[in-house]
Amino acid sequence: MERTVQESMKQLIIGEALPNIPWEEKPAGCQDVVWRSKKNPIIPRDLLRTSNSIFNSAVVPFQGKFAGVFRCDDRRRRMQIHSGRSDDGINWVIKEEPINFICADPEIAEFTYGRYDPRVCWIEDRYYVTWCNGYKGYPTIGLAYTYDFEEFHQLENAFLPFNRNGVLFPRKIKGKYAMLSRPSDNGHTPFGDIFYSESPDLCYWGKHRYVMGATTGWQATKIGAGPTPIETTEGWLLIYHGVLTSCNGFLYSAGAALLDLDEPWKVIHRTSSYIISPQTIYENVGDVPNVVFPCAALCDAATGRIAIYYGAADTVTCLAFAQVEELIDFIKEDAKK
Amino acid sequence: MERTVQESMKQLIIGEALPNIPWEEKPAGCQDVVWRSKKNPIIPRDLLRTSNSIFNSAVVPFQGKFAGVFRCDDRRRRMQIHSGRSDDGINWVIKEEPINFICADPEIAEFTYGRYDPRVCWIEDRYYVTWCNGYKGYPTIGLAYTYDFEEFHQLENAFLPFNRNGVLFPRKIKGKYAMLSRPSDNGHTPFGDIFYSESPDLCYWGKHRYVMGATTGWQATKIGAGPTPIETTEGWLLIYHGVLTSCNGFLYSAGAALLDLDEPWKVIHRTSSYIISPQTIYENVGDVPNVVFPCAALCDAATGRIAIYYGAADTVTCLAFAQVEELIDFIKEDAKK
Amino acid sequence: MERTVQESMKQLIIGEALPNIPWEEKPAGCQDVVWRSKKNPIIPRDLLRTSNSIFNSAVVPFQGKFAGVFRCDDRRRRMQIHSGRSDDGINWVIKEEPINFICADPEIAEFTYGRYDPRVCWIEDRYYVTWCNGYKGYPTIGLAYTYDFEEFHQLENAFLPFNRNGVLFPRKIKGKYAMLSRPSDNGHTPFGDIFYSESPDLCYWGKHRYVMGATTGWQATKIGAGPTPIETTEGWLLIYHGVLTSCNGFLYSAGAALLDLDEPWKVIHRTSSYIISPQTIYENVGDVPNVVFPCAALCDAATGRIAIYYGAADTVTCLAFAQVEELIDFIKEDAKK
Amino acid sequence: MERTVQESMKQLIIGEALPNIPWEEKPAGCQDVVWRSKKNPIIPRDLLRTSNSIFNSAVVPFQGKFAGVFRCDDRRRRMQIHSGRSDDGINWVIKEEPINFICADPEIAEFTYGRYDPRVCWIEDRYYVTWCNGYKGYPTIGLAYTYDFEEFHQLENAFLPFNRNGVLFPRKIKGKYAMLSRPSDNGHTPFGDIFYSESPDLCYWGKHRYVMGATTGWQATKIGAGPTPIETTEGWLLIYHGVLTSCNGFLYSAGAALLDLDEPWKVIHRTSSYIISPQTIYENVGDVPNVVFPCAALCDAATGRIAIYYGAADTVTCLAFAQVEELIDFIKEDAKK
Amino acid sequence: MERTVQESMKQLIIGEALPNIPWEEKPAGCQDVVWRSKKNPIIPRDLLRTSNSIFNSAVVPFQGKFAGVFRCDDRRRRMQIHSGRSDDGINWVIKEEPINFICADPEIAEFTYGRYDPRVCWIEDRYYVTWCNGYKGYPTIGLAYTYDFEEFHQLENAFLPFNRNGVLFPRKIKGKYAMLSRPSDNGHTPFGDIFYSESPDLCYWGKHRYVMGATTGWQATKIGAGPTPIETTEGWLLIYHGVLTSCNGFLYSAGAALLDLDEPWKVIHRTSSYIISPQTIYENVGDVPNVVFPCAALCDAATGRIAIYYGAADTVTCLAFAQVEELIDFIKEDAKK
Amino acid sequence: MERTVQESMKQLIIGEALPNIPWEEKPAGCQDVVWRSKKNPIIPRDLLRTSNSIFNSAVVPFQGKFAGVFRCDDRRRRMQIHSGRSDDGINWVIKEEPINFICADPEIAEFTYGRYDPRVCWIEDRYYVTWCNGYKGYPTIGLAYTYDFEEFHQLENAFLPFNRNGVLFPRKIKGKYAMLSRPSDNGHTPFGDIFYSESPDLCYWGKHRYVMGATTGWQATKIGAGPTPIETTEGWLLIYHGVLTSCNGFLYSAGAALLDLDEPWKVIHRTSSYIISPQTIYENVGDVPNVVFPCAALCDAATGRIAIYYGAADTVTCLAFAQVEELIDFIKEDAKK
Repeated sequence: MERTVQESMKQLIIGEALPNIPWEEKPAGCQDVVWRSKKNPIIPRDLLRTSNSIFNSAVVPFQGKFAGVFRCDDRRRRMQIHSGRSDDGINWVIKEEPINFICADPEIAEFTYGRYDPRVCWIEDRYYVTWCNGYKGYPTIGLAYTYDFEEFHQLENAFLPFNRNGVLFPRKIKGKYAMLSRPSDNGHTPFGDIFYSESPDLCYWGKHRYVMGATTGWQATKIGAGPTPIETTEGWLLIYHGVLTSCNGFLYSAGAALLDLDEPWKVIHRTSSYIISPQTIYENVGDVPNVVFPCAALCDAATGRIAIYYGAADTVTCLAFAQVEELIDFIKEDAKK
Repeated sequence: MERTVQESMKQLIIGEALPNIPWEEKPAGCQDVVWRSKKNPIIPRDLLRTSNSIFNSAVVPFQGKFAGVFRCDDRRRRMQIHSGRSDDGINWVIKEEPINFICADPEIAEFTYGRYDPRVCWIEDRYYVTWCNGYKGYPTIGLAYTYDFEEFHQLENAFLPFNRNGVLFPRKIKGKYAMLSRPSDNGHTPFGDIFYSESPDLCYWGKHRYVMGATTGWQATKIGAGPTPIETTEGWLLIYHGVLTSCNGFLYSAGAALLDLDEPWKVIHRTSSYIISPQTIYENVGDVPNVVFPCAALCDAATGRIAIYYGAADTVTCLAFAQVEELIDFIKEDAKK
Repeated sequence: MERTVQESMKQLIIGEALPNIPWEEKPAGCQDVVWRSKKNPIIPRDLLRTSNSIFNSAVVPFQGKFAGVFRCDDRRRRMQIHSGRSDDGINWVIKEEPINFICADPEIAEFTYGRYDPRVCWIEDRYYVTWCNGYKGYPTIGLAYTYDFEEFHQLENAFLPFNRNGVLFPRKIKGKYAMLSRPSDNGHTPFGDIFYSESPDLCYWGKHRYVMGATTGWQATKIGAGPTPIETTEGWLLIYHGVLTSCNGFLYSAGAALLDLDEPWKVIHRTSSYIISPQTIYENVGDVPNVVFPCAALCDAATGRIAIYYGAADTVTCLAFAQVEELIDFIKEDAKK
Repeated sequence: MERTVQESMKQLIIGEALPNIPWEEKPAGCQDVVWRSKKNPIIPRDLLRTSNSIFNSAVVPFQGKFAGVFRCDDRRRRMQIHSGRSDDGINWVIKEEPINFICADPEIAEFTYGRYDPRVCWIEDRYYVTWCNGYKGYPTIGLAYTYDFEEFHQLENAFLPFNRNGVLFPRKIKGKYAMLSRPSDNGHTPFGDIFYSESPDLCYWGKHRYVMGATTGWQATKIGAGPTPIETTEGWLLIYHGVLTSCNGFLYSAGAALLDLDEPWKVIHRTSSYIISPQTIYENVGDVPNVVFPCAALCDAATGRIAIYYGAADTVTCLAFAQVEELIDFIKEDAKK
Repeated sequence: MERTVQESMKQLIIGEALPNIPWEEKPAGCQDVVWRSKKNPIIPRDLLRTSNSIFNSAVVPFQGKFAGVFRCDDRRRRMQIHSGRSDDGINWVIKEEPINFICADPEIAEFTYGRYDPRVCWIEDRYYVTWCNGYKGYPTIGLAYTYDFEEFHQLENAFLPFNRNGVLFPRKIKGKYAMLSRPSDNGHTPFGDIFYSESPDLCYWGKHRYVMGATTGWQATKIGAGPTPIETTEGWLLIYHGVLTSCNGFLYSAGAALLDLDEPWKVIHRTSSYIISPQTIYENVGDVPNVVFPCAALCDAATGRIAIYYGAADTVTCLAFAQVEELIDFIKEDAKK
Repeated sequence: MERTVQESMKQLIIGEALPNIPWEEKPAGCQDVVWRSKKNPIIPRDLLRTSNSIFNSAVVPFQGKFAGVFRCDDRRRRMQIHSGRSDDGINWVIKEEPINFICADPEIAEFTYGRYDPRVCWIEDRYYVTWCNGYKGYPTIGLAYTYDFEEFHQLENAFLPFNRNGVLFPRKIKGKYAMLSRPSDNGHTPFGDIFYSESPDLCYWGKHRYVMGATTGWQATKIGAGPTPIETTEGWLLIYHGVLTSCNGFLYSAGAALLDLDEPWKVIHRTSSYIISPQTIYENVGDVPNVVFPCAALCDAATGRIAIYYGAADTVTCLAFAQVEELIDFIKEDAKK
């Protein structure tokens, strides 16, 4: 007997309904587990008058609508993050000015390098933003919170340099805040694995655990966490990017994994195949050719719909869709191969 | 007095007629010696449900129709080779499953790396397949034979690692099997010349001879043999690829040479110019931008028509055409410059 | 009170009117300081029967029409420079044969490497051509003059290797010829700053001065002078290229600066933002993806119109436009940020 | 009026007397601030029957005598740390077997890479050992404590990989444990600066601050903290190593700095000159030529004597001496130049 | 009960007695399995008037005395091999002129690169020499035979480039000649494993098998076969070199392994520890610091004595000693750790 | 009939007698064309209280005695040049303070990088010093003159960066000053050929000519002029250094060449063998192992004696000797091989 959609949904995503999630049905004949929006790229490179590119950005439900933090490189190619709002998750208004973080300690506020690749995560009572933060010219994980996407309060950097792709879990685990990150070096890092760290207070971090690393194929060079993990009955659903080094440079695709709910450094299943790779002109051509880089996912627990926001070619912002039960089945099945 | 087409053809290709060779006439106004099929790419990247890309593949006439061996990278980006069939050489049916080689010795069957860039060659009584074969994780030249493109029997690897682009001659030369290959290293090899080796039995190889090497321009970084050499009255017609390293990576083009019939390591003529380079969107854009990589050529001795199969952008399979007398004239003329 | 266009023009460019300058008005809604021609690419890669690409080329007004020197790589990927003529600056007739320089000394005429990236500059009584000249296989600055774009007389190389992007000033400064150049190395140089040198006679050069160097963002890796500097009341207007190194290679954009009229190694203002970067398919895709490389600019002192010729993707030649007062305002404003 | 030795001493080192500190007077005529022991190397490479080399090791006063933790690479070139004892600080007995850390959590105990370059530091009630600890094959800062140099209890790794040269301060600062470390990469890291981190409990670390970085000359490539900082009335006295990259590899020398007592990431003075560099045969020749690498310092607050233990040529362990007031004067004076 | 020396010897080396083997007893107190000659270096760098260095050389018993082939780099730093004679295996007379190989085919005789690192091996009726042979400027395995160390007859190169360290087995195995070699690249190869190949005739080679590869520690970068394998009752005794890459370059040590007598690509035991590493001034200092590189071993089946000839610091030739039963015990024991 | 020494001398060196030239007879049995002083190193690394090393230095006859300019790296490893005096050319007094160049133009005086590897050359009425001069942090050829080794007047840098090893000829050639130099890059340059340039006034330089380049063996990586060329009846005698890249870095040796007297870019003869290479402990061991780097030569035209000053291991200064007729014979003979 077939499961009804409604029944199966309830069993998977642990969270709230999001009836206004951006959504397009899977095209007829499409056999892929993830499919692209027909409106891609939903955010063009020059949405801001001064922007060179808008990509690798994060959105969340906010007051019945949507808010987000966006990587907007300007025409000096400075990397900055800006806040934005949207009624439908597709048409966005992004502020002209970068976020001006409120921060008392000049050592934390120090800014010589750029801010980029933000993620946004609701925990308990507020939104936390993590991003790759330049400290003394070196990349590490910046951390801030906001209640309203107007005022952002910057906290201590989570880690020592060199680090990128810091992604918070959306609730405490065993009483501790938890973050995935990817230690790196100071350039176009040719290696990178995902680690897990915990914190009692978002200031001091420790109990670092190796989660998973680069392997072969599309994820042979390095990997990094993407959107905030989605809590499901099958484990934390983690969408992540992986990099393959061809003779002409890096190629960024995305895969998915299920992590243990209580000890998230334990990988239950992980795709060997990518779930999306650069295959359209807006993913293959741009400031950095051949990049698909997911940074956020909206999900509707009621229907199991997931809307994945990803940067394409380090130039524009795009949207893709998946059904959670189908995605989890794919992860399980593909991991066996 | 002009030579008639019929007359001139007879004098060049030493082989059989192939009346059903895929063919398109040269477009009016085109001054190039090689021209592309209007149907390109003839094999899309997702012809198989699980394929990431299908390219660098080899076809032969088979039972009045066509058969071939195809490089199909799957969505893990594992490199595998699959057999396929076609009525017309253009529309292909490729098996979902990779070739499952029959092989008694587990050392030969060892498989940790991938199989890719196959060539197929009829010698005497059967079809031989050569490909870049991973042995203990290192590339070398794999070798197998088939009578029917259903069962493939794997033989000993021809050489020690590291080697790629092993291409058999279609008949014994002075009583010995003969192969071109390109010694390399284990990565995106930045060097590479073509060597000649012979074998009494396809098991033991020796009498290795240097044929030709990288020079300048489009073939400054490395070169490698492409399709099975075509026997002509002017020598072995070898189409080969060459690589130029720009500030943004490798660019693969193709040229041609004539090798001595009896001592094929002696180069009679060789183009200084490419005969085809990446200039269309499907050659410039894909998993590896800017790649034209020929792996097979059909030829009709009766008309001198040549149909060249090549991989484009390491993503799709394409077709281009040439007339043998025109191509040989071009090689001779261009070599003088 | 607003300045009228006519008034403001007079005050800026120090030079002659060029009423037939190629020109297109800025598109409605365009907020950029530089805008592209709708006819781009104005010179296709295969304008010559034997050319692989035509780009990074230089044009000047000539006898009421236009003449130029063009980089035409042939299908060996040899780099050569050819002269050409045009009635309108847009439709060009380029000679099939490269320029055959007249030169008595075989050491100067020595040619083992290629000639590329020419600039043309009128000084006093003739046109001077500078280009990247291979001497014993190493790049340095070649120098020649012509009266008629038919006969070109080659002079001594200006500098020791390794050097590229030699750009003459259009008049003597304090009685000396003056040239900008960019010392480099022998490959895809990952560094590069602009220097100034002077000469009493175009044979001996000295008093070398550092002008400006690579900084951050789009010009983080290296920079090089582009068109002949334009004399204005605000200083020498220098359009230059800058390079950013992404994980997939170099990306070439262009910016602008104002240099002191008497001591041009003193930078008055310099853009932090680019004025044009690769954003169209013909700039993003080609033999070298993501290249915008300006080598010449026509200007009409009467109207302040500037027509910038630039190579795109190392494949084709394009045209863009700017208004001098707007450009100078942009430089001043942007430099403040 | 001259200061008496006794008086001046009191004012500088904040700590206890160590009357049995190993000591040799400065040789007559020697003008250097640091001078070598005549007994060097005090520990030969083969002190253990199975050792390839013994170097980069740490010693402390212990029960009226001395104890230490020693890097002993065996003849597989595995890097391990062993405990040892000495009556006089010069003649050492090192245990044949590496330290077998007591540790409940297998994730902490995980060991795939080696342990090396230990430091030992007394804080409050026990000895803490820090070292470069392989976790999943990556270097980070291992941490353990011992009361008796017999049983060692391993704690959580302090940081995410990649890190080396973790050095604890000998007391809490503003109520927090404090550590210097040098973020790095996974190989022969060609960069490296010193950072400061604090912890409430030696488990969670945060409030990371940049202390100082590589500059020029002998410390142009990277720097790293050496012995446990010595508390003085002038600030924390930090002896550190610096690396210069010659055409034949790295050259390791040592310098010194004074850090603010309360905010140790603030550098008060820092030598521009090295205080010791590889100049003897046992420093110039060995498994890694040209290495001087200090890891420990004994000091006698009563006399101001400092005995510096350093690895030489990654092969043997050596001893050098300094007078604290002379060293501090040198730091202040040299920093001015 | 203890085995007598005589008894135990008989059981191990399968071969002939060599009563005049050079020999020095193990020094009292020495606990190493291999010990150095007190006469080291036995061949100085300038034994020939024109030699820069003499090292990495091979010797065999010859007519009751000794003969050998020596790598003598001249003062152009050309690499050549010379024949030599000795009465005692210690004092050598080497010919001033390099070996002038007799060879009809100019393709085989082609010489543009140098000959180096010879091995000599008696099989059936003559001596075979293998060496790293430059063919068209690329390294591969040269092969020749001699009866008298006067006339040397060159055969076909065994393999395609790039290869080094070709070492023949001293008898046919299952009716085929057998060789170990190490595929490489064209420079200071940073990788390298040992492979096995067989040949019916020393001309054609095939059935290539992976034997063993680089691992960790002293043999982390690459390994290569050293002297001709010694047949013992426990398997083929193979002494080989291994390379560790420190921050200051390569360090060459030596280890040993036992290979299956019938299928020598099967490793029975292999040392994890080195048996000798560069620790003396003549091994640590010279044209290439820190090199121990064994190329030959004499053995006396009657006593189990082994005399190992090795190059030191790429400058001089040295001698070391071992007892076969002790060495085999060491291999077995050390392999267990 | 034999030539008497006196007669033969007259015919070779074109210059003055220098009866007090430092000199040691060739040791009995020595067959080398160049032999070392028994007093080496004649200048220790710590001759100055603050010096880390003194090497790569230049001396000239001065007022019946000797004067020189010395590279003295201090203990910051800053590179500076100091003047010095000696009665005998062997025992030197070097000033504690670096040369303080007199120079009006701050652009010339700009100093951010160091001065090193000086040469000194008498032309007409004064001594000229050339050295590798940091300009804006980049190496180029600095130029100054002195009458008395007290006051040094700095002139314009001769060339654009990047350049090293600028060596003046001791007289004008065809009315122009002449200089050899070696264009390079900004690091441990892995390439380098010698070029010739001329100047009417020591300010403007041009007519650059390629002289000779790196080849193979000891001079495979790069070469650079050493001492001021010595005028002889056989041509300009040029001693130069050459570099070989081993797996453990650069090895610097020296060779010699004869250049045409009137067109010195024409090489008459050039050694294939080195005349001296690093073979002593003071050349093999030091801050940079394996360096012999000649920067000056005294010669006595009356006897043909040449005293060569060279830096050893980038640490100390040494002396070697040659007889001009023997050296020229060696060059001629060795060039034939």
